[in-house]
Amino acid sequence: MKTALIILAAGKGTRMNSDLPKVLHPIAQAPLLAHAMASGTELEPSHTVIVAGHGADLVCRAVFEIDEEAIVVEQTEQLGTAHAVAQAREALAGFDGMALVLYGDTPFVRSETLEKMRDALASSDVVVLGFEAADPARYGRLILAGETLERIVEYKDASEAERAITLCNSGVVACKADLLFDLIDAVGNDNASEEYYLTDIVGIARARGLSATAVTCDEAETLGVNSRSDLASAEAAFQSRARATLMEDGVTMMAPETVYLARDTVIGRDTVIEPNVVFGPGVTVESGVTLRSFSHLEGCHVSRGSIVGPYARLRPGAELAEDVRIGNFVEVKNAQIAEGAKVNHLSYIGDATIGARANIGAGTITCNYDGVMKHHTEIGAGAFIGSNTMLVAPVSVGSGAITGSGSVITSDVASDALALSRAPQIEKPGVARKMFEMLKAKKARMQRGS
Amino acid sequence: MKTALIILAAGKGTRMNSDLPKVLHPIAQAPLLAHAMASGTELEPSHTVIVAGHGADLVCRAVFEIDEEAIVVEQTEQLGTAHAVAQAREALAGFDGMALVLYGDTPFVRSETLEKMRDALASSDVVVLGFEAADPARYGRLILAGETLERIVEYKDASEAERAITLCNSGVVACKADLLFDLIDAVGNDNASEEYYLTDIVGIARARGLSATAVTCDEAETLGVNSRSDLASAEAAFQSRARATLMEDGVTMMAPETVYLARDTVIGRDTVIEPNVVFGPGVTVESGVTLRSFSHLEGCHVSRGSIVGPYARLRPGAELAEDVRIGNFVEVKNAQIAEGAKVNHLSYIGDATIGARANIGAGTITCNYDGVMKHHTEIGAGAFIGSNTMLVAPVSVGSGAITGSGSVITSDVASDALALSRAPQIEKPGVARKMFEMLKAKKARMQRGS
Amino acid sequence: MKTALIILAAGKGTRMNSDLPKVLHPIAQAPLLAHAMASGTELEPSHTVIVAGHGADLVCRAVFEIDEEAIVVEQTEQLGTAHAVAQAREALAGFDGMALVLYGDTPFVRSETLEKMRDALASSDVVVLGFEAADPARYGRLILAGETLERIVEYKDASEAERAITLCNSGVVACKADLLFDLIDAVGNDNASEEYYLTDIVGIARARGLSATAVTCDEAETLGVNSRSDLASAEAAFQSRARATLMEDGVTMMAPETVYLARDTVIGRDTVIEPNVVFGPGVTVESGVTLRSFSHLEGCHVSRGSIVGPYARLRPGAELAEDVRIGNFVEVKNAQIAEGAKVNHLSYIGDATIGARANIGAGTITCNYDGVMKHHTEIGAGAFIGSNTMLVAPVSVGSGAITGSGSVITSDVASDALALSRAPQIEKPGVARKMFEMLKAKKARMQRGS
Repeated sequence: MKTALIILAAGKGTRMNSDLPKVLHPIAQAPLLAHAMASGTELEPSHTVIVAGHGADLVCRAVFEIDEEAIVVEQTEQLGTAHAVAQAREALAGFDGMALVLYGDTPFVRSETLEKMRDALASSDVVVLGFEAADPARYGRLILAGETLERIVEYKDASEAERAITLCNSGVVACKADLLFDLIDAVGNDNASEEYYLTDIVGIARARGLSATAVTCDEAETLGVNSRSDLASAEAAFQSRARATLMEDGVTMMAPETVYLARDTVIGRDTVIEPNVVFGPGVTVESGVTLRSFSHLEGCHVSRGSIVGPYARLRPGAELAEDVRIGNFVEVKNAQIAEGAKVNHLSYIGDATIGARANIGAGTITCNYDGVMKHHTEIGAGAFIGSNTMLVAPVSVGSGAITGSGSVITSDVASDALALSRAPQIEKPGVARKMFEMLKAKKARMQRGS
Repeated sequence: MKTALIILAAGKGTRMNSDLPKVLHPIAQAPLLAHAMASGTELEPSHTVIVAGHGADLVCRAVFEIDEEAIVVEQTEQLGTAHAVAQAREALAGFDGMALVLYGDTPFVRSETLEKMRDALASSDVVVLGFEAADPARYGRLILAGETLERIVEYKDASEAERAITLCNSGVVACKADLLFDLIDAVGNDNASEEYYLTDIVGIARARGLSATAVTCDEAETLGVNSRSDLASAEAAFQSRARATLMEDGVTMMAPETVYLARDTVIGRDTVIEPNVVFGPGVTVESGVTLRSFSHLEGCHVSRGSIVGPYARLRPGAELAEDVRIGNFVEVKNAQIAEGAKVNHLSYIGDATIGARANIGAGTITCNYDGVMKHHTEIGAGAFIGSNTMLVAPVSVGSGAITGSGSVITSDVASDALALSRAPQIEKPGVARKMFEMLKAKKARMQRGS
Repeated sequence: MKTALIILAAGKGTRMNSDLPKVLHPIAQAPLLAHAMASGTELEPSHTVIVAGHGADLVCRAVFEIDEEAIVVEQTEQLGTAHAVAQAREALAGFDGMALVLYGDTPFVRSETLEKMRDALASSDVVVLGFEAADPARYGRLILAGETLERIVEYKDASEAERAITLCNSGVVACKADLLFDLIDAVGNDNASEEYYLTDIVGIARARGLSATAVTCDEAETLGVNSRSDLASAEAAFQSRARATLMEDGVTMMAPETVYLARDTVIGRDTVIEPNVVFGPGVTVESGVTLRSFSHLEGCHVSRGSIVGPYARLRPGAELAEDVRIGNFVEVKNAQIAEGAKVNHLSYIGDATIGARANIGAGTITCNYDGVMKHHTEIGAGAFIGSNTMLVAPVSVGSGAITGSGSVITSDVASDALALSRAPQIEKPGVARKMFEMLKAKKARMQRGS
């Protein structure tokens, strides 16, 4: 059956205390909404409809970045979940498959769970996702009769017997699209909040003699985010699972609780990660790499046998070939570092190509920006860049060449050449002693004067 | 009623295993004693008397830094809490308000709790602060008859029935000052430790027909510090509360458990803090700031829209205007950075003023120290400081000026001028190859020789 | 009685999902096997026999680094623990003392526990180490009759009554060597796994009328490592104990959970460690030192009164005398820094000697590597190295000398002299403005062109 996702993302998230719409707050460095959308992608939906409300413009822009084909519809008044779903009616005109209602602030529903819901829809008109709650608190309860879901009862309307039920409502619903909109038309707002509740469709369907059933998932999948504290807990849950998966896959983390991963981090077997390493999006690390403490990686690739850090920062476009060494207080951005090259200390390598086995001395800087544009630096294989060399791009240093310490290289250097820009060293005997005496006397005068 | 604080701070803290007096060990980067003193400041005490003993000189100096008007009295022998309080008698001669006895190693008593004690003193002669203990262990128990506090019984003297009581003694006491000293005179030391216990005043007061009552607080408020491990637990409790408060106030922390705050840290709404950020004292951060991983801030101000880090260190006197960018491996000290200026990589900016939208190249250093005195550097708006420029202070670079990469700037540079100090680049063809051959041959000779 | 250790280290550790043999995975920066070997060293064994199997070559190399006198024997087929122990027979030919069987993946057995086993062997033929398990799960159970150990029953063979026993088998066994090998000869492999189990020797001994008994230890001592997740848990257990010990010894850690220690880390009383400090092997820190956040120390010594960090990296051979200051983004390797010297910012000091009270300016680099060999730099007492000085080793700067900012020092500098290598500053009025105009025009042309 064809699938359409309807993702509710209109809420203000008052308890977030933020100007940013709730669904755009990130976990694992991607907006909550991106996680919710990703839950449904393995069902290969033909339509994805996001119902935006608060901050709709920002949501619209974010959705475009995640999935250009997703449709954003606006719910101008927040009149309840059934009303929100109704906003998707026009976008799904003519669609006759399954509509699956998800929530933009509920990031962890698994694809497998949604597939179970789709399967259940083959023999049921309405499918609701439920979970066994450790502490059912004030969740709505799913009232079953055998396999049949009779209705969903809100906590405040529940009898003592109903409150004893621990099977709770996640809010996620699957239903054929035309039937869904049909049922929603029958939902009223005759309740304390004067809102149209999506959950009412179960009772309405049953009253019409249609069938309804529940599919269950782990409570962890239904975790919703309503405050920054919830956000931090969701992040912690994500990190904890991601670290465990990496360890099973053969990655060693001395202190996994200090390693922060992004959604798309890929790390190879027998790579060792020391304490306090942070991954931004877009990082792939091959097998047998060592990532030392206090390193920070984003949008980069690290090949087998390389050693990175401590205190190394790899920014987007950093590509390390095998056996590369990036040492402390080194920043690499948009640069290809060939096999066996070393950048060991206090350097900035940006917009550059470094040849195999080149040695980049401490304090080397690629001067890639002239105040208006960025330029490229090229270093040949086996070159030896002396400490504190300024490479004023665009510039190239040939293979096997040497630059002298403290040089400013503004013209290309030929292979095997030695390039220097250096004033001769001069020495003034005894002058240091006189300078210190003079400065101390001056200081004493100033202190007397003050 | 006027209030006097008597803060007991004489203990050695043997289990701290330290040369530093116990009450000077810090949490949230302020001594325990400062926390205890702060608990009472909202009562606007007319007198604050600190009873010092072990390390009295150090305590005295610390008190002077916290509150110049506080009085330190010395307890030369440690003969018990009643004896300690008695040392404050002279300092409070003629004072006829409420005396409130606090403890220098008990940092978390809330002002609201102390206010409740003051209120209770209106209808009672002695007020003791109690708490419901989750695990009463060996605490003293408060024995109540209705609203009346009959006595305080030490654990070791308590009957089975008394040990079943979970309302425990915090040691904090409020009493009119003259009555307090009067009651203390009657306290004896006829007990196993031969100490004069402050708690005995309750029984003495009751025996005289005076009234006593208990005010209760959360157990967390009474947490005392007796070992480094307690100190770490108190720090953790402080941090946990401070992080939760910031999150409620709309600050996003990806991993709150890795963010360390000081007592006075102020952070605006919708500021985002990545993992592993440490705050020293005196930091204010406006709204909408991004503080990236591995940043360290002390005594600084960061304005709206600025991005700091990763690996940025802001030291005292760093003042960032709006939309400033401080990047990796950059240290800023006593410097005003105007709107939109950028210091992106590997720089030291100390004792300086940086104009709006100036761009400070990688490796720039303000040479602010001549070995005796510190000097100031001034950079104009829109200036472009080339990579690895040394700014030998005192020196100024005019607005819109450029300095060439690798320059040592010792004289002022006019606006819109280009300043350089650079030896010409020379190239010696083939010399690099010869040098490598020579060095390798030399190494081989040395290895044969060894 | 003389002691021989037999340490079983042949397992593949399939669940580690690693090319590295399980016993070589590290905790506290030393291989599991090194921890297991260290457990037994206080018994001063005359023989230490490691039974290797998977990755025997790697294990052999590692053992040689830990204890040159240990003997590695190879178990070519993994036929069970009794079979593994049998491989040690030849290595222990003629040895008539106690053989103690330990496990290379069980790092935390205490020396005191092993001493208790040795003592117990005085009155018993076989001694087995047991532990009271909080959750006995599927461990083998020790079946006692009074003081006598009757047999060890595997969980799957145990009756309900036996499963109710919580005294479990650690696998550690002590027995006179000749008897041990004798008993092992009688062990069969008539079981589901067709393996020869060491545990069977208890039943065999009892059947022969020999005596057996159990010694017990804390469950924590028997923690074994079977997966990366177990490894991380073992690391956490180690760190937690090591931090607690340091706090008892008078070290302050603001956030102990963020400080990572090695097995051999030594830290003096009243040293303060800020959050996020990582120790590699071989570090000793004296009393009264401050280690600031984000510091990383390996193989170094820090003397009393020194302040290190934030963001300081001390590498092997860094030796700091008293009251030294190493500041942010500074790397020190193989260097002696004398009393009161300061290296405050953005420097690399490698293969160097720094005199007392010398001041090393920001951006200073010892250019210690010429592409082939490393060379030494010597700085005299009280010298003032200007910012961004390149010290091209081998080179020396005399006491009290000054180097100008941005100098490249290639020749020795005399005491009290001022040394400089600096091109004069030239200024081109208005040129910056023209350059910006030109560059912007060029960029505009390029954008139109694209």
